[in-house]
Amino acid sequence: MEKLAVICIGDELLKGAVVNTGLAAIGHFLLEYGIIPEFACEIPDTREAIEEALEFALKKADTVITSGGLGSTADDVTKEFIAASLGIRLEENGEAMRNVQAFWRMKHPGEEVPHRVFNQALVPVGAKVLQNDCGSAPGLILTVPESSEEFAGKTIVMLPGSPSELEPMLAGKLAAWVRRELKTQVFTREFRICGRREGDVEERMLPVLSRHHGSLDAAYCATAQFVRLFIRSRNPEVMDASISEIRAEFGDDLLRDEHVSLPEEVFELLRDNGGTLAVAESCTGGLVSKWMTDMPGSSEVFCGSVVSYSNEVKSSLLQVPGEILKKYGAVSRETARAMLDGLRTAIPSDAAIALTGIAGPGGASVGKPVGLVYAAVRYRDTVDVCELRLRRSREQIRAGAAAEALDHLRRMILHPAE
Amino acid sequence: MEKLAVICIGDELLKGAVVNTGLAAIGHFLLEYGIIPEFACEIPDTREAIEEALEFALKKADTVITSGGLGSTADDVTKEFIAASLGIRLEENGEAMRNVQAFWRMKHPGEEVPHRVFNQALVPVGAKVLQNDCGSAPGLILTVPESSEEFAGKTIVMLPGSPSELEPMLAGKLAAWVRRELKTQVFTREFRICGRREGDVEERMLPVLSRHHGSLDAAYCATAQFVRLFIRSRNPEVMDASISEIRAEFGDDLLRDEHVSLPEEVFELLRDNGGTLAVAESCTGGLVSKWMTDMPGSSEVFCGSVVSYSNEVKSSLLQVPGEILKKYGAVSRETARAMLDGLRTAIPSDAAIALTGIAGPGGASVGKPVGLVYAAVRYRDTVDVCELRLRRSREQIRAGAAAEALDHLRRMILHPAE
Repeated sequence: MEKLAVICIGDELLKGAVVNTGLAAIGHFLLEYGIIPEFACEIPDTREAIEEALEFALKKADTVITSGGLGSTADDVTKEFIAASLGIRLEENGEAMRNVQAFWRMKHPGEEVPHRVFNQALVPVGAKVLQNDCGSAPGLILTVPESSEEFAGKTIVMLPGSPSELEPMLAGKLAAWVRRELKTQVFTREFRICGRREGDVEERMLPVLSRHHGSLDAAYCATAQFVRLFIRSRNPEVMDASISEIRAEFGDDLLRDEHVSLPEEVFELLRDNGGTLAVAESCTGGLVSKWMTDMPGSSEVFCGSVVSYSNEVKSSLLQVPGEILKKYGAVSRETARAMLDGLRTAIPSDAAIALTGIAGPGGASVGKPVGLVYAAVRYRDTVDVCELRLRRSREQIRAGAAAEALDHLRRMILHPAE
Repeated sequence: MEKLAVICIGDELLKGAVVNTGLAAIGHFLLEYGIIPEFACEIPDTREAIEEALEFALKKADTVITSGGLGSTADDVTKEFIAASLGIRLEENGEAMRNVQAFWRMKHPGEEVPHRVFNQALVPVGAKVLQNDCGSAPGLILTVPESSEEFAGKTIVMLPGSPSELEPMLAGKLAAWVRRELKTQVFTREFRICGRREGDVEERMLPVLSRHHGSLDAAYCATAQFVRLFIRSRNPEVMDASISEIRAEFGDDLLRDEHVSLPEEVFELLRDNGGTLAVAESCTGGLVSKWMTDMPGSSEVFCGSVVSYSNEVKSSLLQVPGEILKKYGAVSRETARAMLDGLRTAIPSDAAIALTGIAGPGGASVGKPVGLVYAAVRYRDTVDVCELRLRRSREQIRAGAAAEALDHLRRMILHPAE
């Protein structure tokens, strides 16, 4: 497990038909264990491509993870070609067959299981089966046999390609396997830090790292919503001490739960406090609402929103006074505050966010550059209005504004005014 | 240019910090010319990784495209390591220097250009410079010199990694280069077909292909919003004839413009007709609004939306009568229609969409399975209500519902009722 490579199989990845979210999910998962792949690739589902990529990957790594090509259609050839290239036969596997049949019966109650899906129960001799709870074809873990002089003892992990099957398998069956495989005991921990840049997090970690000189490793990864910080140690006492130190250093910048997104944490905090959320969006155009409804069950907390992309909608649905729009402009502290106040009548709720700003590339004026956003945030009866100065592309400005507003709300819920 | 490979350079791609949208953009671009890469990979920015990947790629392909690592920070090492591995020196290039200076002065008017950015003007001797209109570091095209026995004459194209620089360079400078490089003259054409599955498009293309037996190639690629169809021929008459045949076969299923997304086409159609759009979203939770505001300038057409995630908001902001919600339920033809009617008062507009449905995984009931969505669509005074039966994940159901509703509106604008 020291060195690892990833092979993603499927023509659609090379055509730009889909973005390779599977690779990101695998990278994201591995980083929890402090592992960064040596190399990852996308290849078509041909025998030659699979054999060449496998050889290249096995040369570079001890463990190779593949994703894709385990289903029941003609282009699902991963296990056949990998087994053939290692001189291993396929055989029907009882555990895999139960997976195939159970999934079919759940999806098609009362129907006969058709013969064509049975090939998903064929597995390379000696492979371990990873039950797939969200699909028909199980994952497989195969040790390269002694007959291979060059690669004997290395490991090939074959996972499904569809994110809806891949992600639960990573979090469940594969996580359990990785924890067992990490040869010497290693403790790992992830933190998610809001409202700070990656360089800032690195700098604040320097004293923690120097205190545990040599016995603690850290890795960093910036995302749109937070910076991910990973620590790793072989010493449980070092681990406990550094967790306390990191908690003291970052305090409320830390998400409570290192397995969720920022919108999910806000959802959970509100749900735990019996609170509801409403949103008024101008420059973000529905992004906060989309984020809040990405998770199943979000209606427990999220009531709805008004996307007020025109001044007319700001006036009619959010009751923003015409004189405020005229005097201060649509992108102003005063308009954000008035949107928030109007939202309280339009969609009564415990928590609320109103955003107005300039996402660009057009729309800037003197004193109001692209990236200027006002976020008004209310929790119960407390209101804050923040001025944000965001950078980069339209997409990054919109995501940055959505993340900063949600983070501000998160902090208000943690420390409600008396 | 017959065989092509892609190397994406950057640690963040292997950490799951970001999804590799650059690779998708390159694949998407190449497919317009009928080219599918043999292979693509993600590697860290180390000398060893770059050299190994370059060797593997040059063995498999005549042209290798790299993206990333051309900037001015310490981890921007692509051109240094590639040049070094081929035994080529870097030299200051006047054209590249003009790019660096022009971009700096645009971003920092009045400031001196700092020395540290000048390394972006160093290019491998003999490389051709691709001006970067959206960033400081130019792209580079390098022919492998005769001194390399194995790879002499092959081509390495180095592009920036940031999507905001990569995508304009693909569409501009690189497109011009690819058209010149395609050795024999090849005509290509893309079509975007809405409302049909990929298999259906393939089947309908069979007679067209058999009519031009052997002189016309086709490739297909399904996306969330449409199926992309590519045709390619060396014969301009075959090209002209098949374009007419495809237009006749698919008619209104075709987007007018093969370079835009479905929301962009709806935006353009409405703008050309002086029309405005309002949206009421329940199950899609803001996705249609987010799509419509992804493009700059969308406020010309898009007024706003109501995300009515609770029955209270459906009643208060959209005036959906309580008895309709009670009698037919929130997911019903009647509620979709009532949301659309209420939206007309809440946000007056020429065109409108209202969506209500069950995105799952929870929320299903007898007769109302996950994936059932009602889309009510109005253009001027004509109203249609469609029942959709969508499949797969929550994310795919939400995207499918948004795409089908926008496609329905697109067709209504094309053929307004008298």
